[in-house]
Amino acid sequence: MATEGQVITCKAAVAWEPNKPLVIEDVQVAPPQAGEVRVKILFTALCHTDAYTWSGKDPEGLFPCILGHEAAGIVESVGEGVTEVQPGDHVIPCYQAECRECKFCKSGKTNLCGKVRLATGVGVMLNDRKSRFSINGKPIYHFMGTSTFSQYTVVHDVSVAKVDPLAPLDKVCLLGCGVPTGLGAVWNTAKVEPGSIVAIFGLGTVGLAVAEGAKAAGASRIIGIDIDSKKFDTAKNFGATEFINPKDHEKPIQQVIVDLTDGGVDYSFECIGNVSVMRAALECCHKGWGTSVIVGVAASGQEISTRPFQLVTGRVWKGTAFGGFKSRSQVPWLVDKYMKKEIKVDEYITHNLTLADINKAFDLMHDGVCLRVLIPTKTAGVPLGLTSQPVCCCGRIGPVLGPSVRLNSDVC
Amino acid sequence: MATEGQVITCKAAVAWEPNKPLVIEDVQVAPPQAGEVRVKILFTALCHTDAYTWSGKDPEGLFPCILGHEAAGIVESVGEGVTEVQPGDHVIPCYQAECRECKFCKSGKTNLCGKVRLATGVGVMLNDRKSRFSINGKPIYHFMGTSTFSQYTVVHDVSVAKVDPLAPLDKVCLLGCGVPTGLGAVWNTAKVEPGSIVAIFGLGTVGLAVAEGAKAAGASRIIGIDIDSKKFDTAKNFGATEFINPKDHEKPIQQVIVDLTDGGVDYSFECIGNVSVMRAALECCHKGWGTSVIVGVAASGQEISTRPFQLVTGRVWKGTAFGGFKSRSQVPWLVDKYMKKEIKVDEYITHNLTLADINKAFDLMHDGVCLRVLIPTKTAGVPLGLTSQPVCCCGRIGPVLGPSVRLNSDVC
Ligand SMILES: NC(=O)c1ccc[n+]([C@@H]2O[C@H](COP(=O)([O-])OP(=O)(O)OC[C@H]3O[C@@H](n4cnc5c(N)ncnc54)[C@H](O)[C@@H]3O)[C@@H](O)[C@H]2O)c1
Ligand SMILES: NC(=O)c1ccc[n+]([C@@H]2O[C@H](COP(=O)([O-])OP(=O)(O)OC[C@H]3O[C@@H](n4cnc5c(N)ncnc54)[C@H](O)[C@@H]3O)[C@@H](O)[C@H]2O)c1
Ligand SMILES: [Zn+2]
Ligand SMILES: [Zn+2]
Ligand SMILES: [Zn+2]
Ligand SMILES: [Zn+2]
Repeated sequence: MATEGQVITCKAAVAWEPNKPLVIEDVQVAPPQAGEVRVKILFTALCHTDAYTWSGKDPEGLFPCILGHEAAGIVESVGEGVTEVQPGDHVIPCYQAECRECKFCKSGKTNLCGKVRLATGVGVMLNDRKSRFSINGKPIYHFMGTSTFSQYTVVHDVSVAKVDPLAPLDKVCLLGCGVPTGLGAVWNTAKVEPGSIVAIFGLGTVGLAVAEGAKAAGASRIIGIDIDSKKFDTAKNFGATEFINPKDHEKPIQQVIVDLTDGGVDYSFECIGNVSVMRAALECCHKGWGTSVIVGVAASGQEISTRPFQLVTGRVWKGTAFGGFKSRSQVPWLVDKYMKKEIKVDEYITHNLTLADINKAFDLMHDGVCLRVLIPTKTAGVPLGLTSQPVCCCGRIGPVLGPSVRLNSDVC
Repeated sequence: MATEGQVITCKAAVAWEPNKPLVIEDVQVAPPQAGEVRVKILFTALCHTDAYTWSGKDPEGLFPCILGHEAAGIVESVGEGVTEVQPGDHVIPCYQAECRECKFCKSGKTNLCGKVRLATGVGVMLNDRKSRFSINGKPIYHFMGTSTFSQYTVVHDVSVAKVDPLAPLDKVCLLGCGVPTGLGAVWNTAKVEPGSIVAIFGLGTVGLAVAEGAKAAGASRIIGIDIDSKKFDTAKNFGATEFINPKDHEKPIQQVIVDLTDGGVDYSFECIGNVSVMRAALECCHKGWGTSVIVGVAASGQEISTRPFQLVTGRVWKGTAFGGFKSRSQVPWLVDKYMKKEIKVDEYITHNLTLADINKAFDLMHDGVCLRVLIPTKTAGVPLGLTSQPVCCCGRIGPVLGPSVRLNSDVC
């Protein structure tokens, strides 16, 4: 490719300071070094972790940075020693790496790869402990090892999943975070069995994916709990069979659920990030075996608590990150499941915005009807560092050429 | 038997009031009703739950009552419909029932049988919601469905395990609570695998049984943690390989352990009943898979807490009651294991006392060198309701006739 080995200047939404609107800037993206991959991001969505770090409440947040971690794109070039992807491959950046070599990967017990964490945790690349992003020489931090609010990004090779080139990137970009998190919480972390009674606290993207996962696992009752009753209609489409709004009850929600289920649920999932709800989710579990999975991310410094008797009498308290999926191995599998229409993705996209309007997306996330906001990165305008070619099957921008046509141009 | 169908008057240690010395009284023990078994208790030991209820700190404690739940004896008579034991059978009363019919038993997921809990929880028998114990017509409450601080007790048939008649009851009585709890925490609840690194907080009877269980499971490192360094020598004999006294360290104990184990242990066990230690036990677990099991019973009203991030990054928080053992099915199996010298029991007995001296046993429990106090119930003096025959192979009181001789007299 023409840009290989070159610095690419492209548009990115830069978070200069916590809680200040992102600014679309011309950013210089350095070529990938050994073990790195430069990806042309075509679509990104927003997730709460972006908003959390942006808000300044994340004590580990570093500024200025480029946020974003739920996205899809195409490999532009690869650094030395990268063998598993090559330019032109369709990929989903994975904030949860998978190196297959570290003690985490080799344990077979977890998806929490340790290989690049020390670097991604401080906004740099492992190779030289530096950022590949800069603006007029001033470095801009990476975020979660992905930084997808940019037309180009550089990720570690262990943090990128190669997916079916026929998959529509404007849909499967969602398989970079929220949807797999919910499905995997059910399939990998809880391992819900057929006939189980399931409670889901919070019916946003993650909670809906839990509902879908529970339905696929054969749960007999799927109880959706949300303080916003507007969520219930949608949740029905994702598999929830019953609904409770805690505001309709005087009694603590755990008691309401225990009464409704002859002793409690088999599995519960907290998909909000609220520590009191995490307690309720544990305590609505059935004595003897009920398992509660924390999926929501609470604000820094907050703590969960309960009486130890809850655990001594057989309840289990767990959590999940990226639903326990091994990213490079299993994201492609999820994409295939989507292509076979075995999992939903399109249904989570409730809004479309341009990169230039990305700040509106942060507002939309507080809107009850919003699940995921899809942002094609192209529309921030030229130059893309390459051409301004507006037509692309993957990008679905401009005239659509049909879902299974792949234009193997240097655009995609 | 001569006493069948009769009220038996015998000696029992009665807790009239919280925190007041037990009093040896002549107690009337009514015959067993349908589904009940009257057991002649030969040996009982003391466990912390007895002391906890006795202290008055247990909000569910009922007085006057007869405490005791770690014991062994011989069936004196059975009520209507009792088929699994008969007079003369050697038995261990089980505070954790096993009915094989309730939804807990049938779940295959827990040992927490629900059949008699509502009755035993309030100190009575299920059949008529009354106590079988009285003193001059005044009812005395049962405790944990066992009440073994008495020469005779009445238990539900689902709460009694029939064991090998050749097993020495003065030893296997310990298989009624503490020892199985520790072994089962490792084998059933945590399911420790060969090569695992294990941390044990608290090296009393329960913690030592955890050490033994971990050794049997093939753990590669077994780290014993106690604030009383006197425990370390004993713990070595039970399988512990390393020792830490938190008092020797400035850093929080979880940090000390994480540093010592390259990231944390695979399994930890809290065998104290201290909620801050429960937190440390969770937080010393390895990210990604470390599992912490709460075994200790905390005082009423106390709560455990941690940052939810601990669970989201893969740690699992569990608890165990009676080590997850199904009592009637598995206590006999534990007795057999003891007979085959596959598990220790004798080594936990550090003191012997008479029933008349039972109050001293409560004091001894606060003594660092005390594990279990063995109390033969006979020695409270005649009448036993039967004979005053002082010689019995099971009882090992008076001349011992050898461990495999069974005197099938009406004494044993
Ligand atoms: N563990 C992981 O790997 C991982 C990955 C992605 C997202 N997350 C976290 O999952 C959580 C959910 O994400 P999302 O995108 O679905 O969020 P969302 O905001 O779209 O959904 C949250 C839902 O919870 C409801 N809610 C809020 N307070 C409630 C309460 N007290 N009781 C009941 N319902 C309540 C809201 O009405 C909303 O419908 C977030 O905390 C996010 O950070 C975790
Ligand atoms: N879950 C169950 O089914 C079950 C069954 C039996 C006993 N238990 C509970 O298990 C616990 C242990 O029983 P036990 O008989 O072994 O008790 P124990 O008192 O003999 O042993 C406790 C040990 O913990 C040590 N310790 C105290 N505070 C400590 C601290 N802060 N840090 C480190 N060590 C500390 C003591 O020195 C002692 O060696 C009790 O709470 C008991 O009620 C639970
Ligand atoms: Zn996310
Ligand atoms: Zn790895
Ligand atoms: Zn006990
Ligand atoms: Zn039962």
